[in-house]
Amino acid sequence: MATRMRLKLKTVFVLYFMVSLMGLIYALMQLGQRCDCTEHDMPKDRIISRLRGELHSLQEQTRKLEATKQPEKNPAAPFLPTIFVITPTYARLVQKAELTRLMQTFLHVPQLHWIVVEDSPRKTALVTDLLKKSGLVYTHLHFLTAKDRKLQEGDPSWLKPRGVEQRNEGLRWLREDRRAPPGEDGQQGVVYFADDDNTYSVQLFTEMRNTQRVSVWPVGLVGGMKYERPVVEGGKVVRFHTGWRPSRPFPMDMAGFAVSLRLVLTNPEACFDGEAPMGFLESSFLKGLVTMDELEPKADDCTKVLVWHTRTEKPKMKREDALQAQGLGSDPAVEV
Amino acid sequence: MATRMRLKLKTVFVLYFMVSLMGLIYALMQLGQRCDCTEHDMPKDRIISRLRGELHSLQEQTRKLEATKQPEKNPAAPFLPTIFVITPTYARLVQKAELTRLMQTFLHVPQLHWIVVEDSPRKTALVTDLLKKSGLVYTHLHFLTAKDRKLQEGDPSWLKPRGVEQRNEGLRWLREDRRAPPGEDGQQGVVYFADDDNTYSVQLFTEMRNTQRVSVWPVGLVGGMKYERPVVEGGKVVRFHTGWRPSRPFPMDMAGFAVSLRLVLTNPEACFDGEAPMGFLESSFLKGLVTMDELEPKADDCTKVLVWHTRTEKPKMKREDALQAQGLGSDPAVEV
Repeated sequence: MATRMRLKLKTVFVLYFMVSLMGLIYALMQLGQRCDCTEHDMPKDRIISRLRGELHSLQEQTRKLEATKQPEKNPAAPFLPTIFVITPTYARLVQKAELTRLMQTFLHVPQLHWIVVEDSPRKTALVTDLLKKSGLVYTHLHFLTAKDRKLQEGDPSWLKPRGVEQRNEGLRWLREDRRAPPGEDGQQGVVYFADDDNTYSVQLFTEMRNTQRVSVWPVGLVGGMKYERPVVEGGKVVRFHTGWRPSRPFPMDMAGFAVSLRLVLTNPEACFDGEAPMGFLESSFLKGLVTMDELEPKADDCTKVLVWHTRTEKPKMKREDALQAQGLGSDPAVEV
Repeated sequence: MATRMRLKLKTVFVLYFMVSLMGLIYALMQLGQRCDCTEHDMPKDRIISRLRGELHSLQEQTRKLEATKQPEKNPAAPFLPTIFVITPTYARLVQKAELTRLMQTFLHVPQLHWIVVEDSPRKTALVTDLLKKSGLVYTHLHFLTAKDRKLQEGDPSWLKPRGVEQRNEGLRWLREDRRAPPGEDGQQGVVYFADDDNTYSVQLFTEMRNTQRVSVWPVGLVGGMKYERPVVEGGKVVRFHTGWRPSRPFPMDMAGFAVSLRLVLTNPEACFDGEAPMGFLESSFLKGLVTMDELEPKADDCTKVLVWHTRTEKPKMKREDALQAQGLGSDPAVEV
């Protein structure tokens, strides 16, 4: 009987032995699974680090590009004071050529806002189209100069100042559009008057960018001189190098100075006086704004010429007229 | 004794019971772990999709930037045919102004190689310095025109052609420097002659980029006309709109055509003939290279003016001279 019982116990014991083994085997299988789980993590880690790598190098690339790409799209630009360039222009054979090379210079300048003011009863298609395609930030205005104030065919260019009403119209637009909200200091900016026939180095705009009141520099090939310029001693303008009437309040060419936007906005009456005697147009605008002592000399104390008062010849149309007479002239539909 | 043994067996059986339980408990713990493993996958998937998103938008941004950034740094550029622009130049008051605005136009053109040839016994400091600072790919050459071939003070500009020797020197350099290695086809390229006083639209260079032999287009304000141009019918040049001697082989201005580099290299004798009668200089170069029938019209079948034959006035130095006489002239150390 004891033996039978022992047998019974043995089977029970064997059964339990099996169960325990199954448990252990199962446990070991689980151990295997644990490895699986970490293993099938690894590729994801690799993907992540690869993606992070690509992302980084791409960010690098973008940063470099940002630095070299076209100015008007430069995100650094919004932190620069805007340069408002006021350009009076009028219809003539070389107008499109002049505006084209001017535009191609301005495209190198960050944060430039081109204010083009036509001497015309309405905006012309030529200028409208050129500005639309330019890729520049611009404002297109027009203001017709009264006939009696306009140079007539054959008049010497010095007889009447050109572009007076157009520059004043540009100032009027700025004071209307950019006036500071009450209590605020308003937009950081600079105002420059750029005629469409001069030659401007891109460097000039870097020089004028941080004008506080009125900044000044030399102008090449102006007034019958190799250059005119303010003479600087101890960082201050003490007199002017000019070929004619140095006694004028500001014997400088229009291309030789820039004014801070704030100064333009806080002196709403300051404008160009078309009745001013010849050579006094710049003075008529500046005298209310600044004193010689306050002028800010740029371009290495006015020792570098970065703008030239170039003038483009009026093209002769001798042969055109002859062919027109025979009805063989150039197609007027072709814009020149 | 049987009872004692039964007791012993009981303890053994209990021990095994314990072991099996431990096995099962352990198994259950493992089950828990399995869940963990899938759970802590999820954030990684999120990280990956986020990174992929960032990467995509950044790639978009980069693509846009590539399109807008400065040409000479454009990595796409190396796959474009190089445009070799040969510019003859000579010392005069407006030289620096002219070269400055020309340079600022060329800076917008990808894969442009500027070949500047001075009419001078040696390279001048002014041009050397301007080119060094330009940021353009350039080659600086010089070739002095013989005195008897040069325009004298007061000569009408049409009396003798200007820049002949300098253009030929540019061609000589190209044939020496860019000749194809034996058996090879050589570099894809275009050769254009750009005087330093004309006005060039950036668009013009896109038009000439894929010149196969000789491409042509209108030139504005030239030859006493609003424009001169090849007349195109059925995609072919059939005659020329010009104010003078349309019978000339190629009645076109220097600014009105570009030649493929291959054509220049495979015709080593083609050059400009300074002895050619007035108006035949362009023909003297082109007649050996191409026939009218082979000309490739650009600029919408020669209906768009993208280059203007502008001329800059010689500045008067009346006041400068007067001041010089008094020893008060402009400082010669200041470069204008």
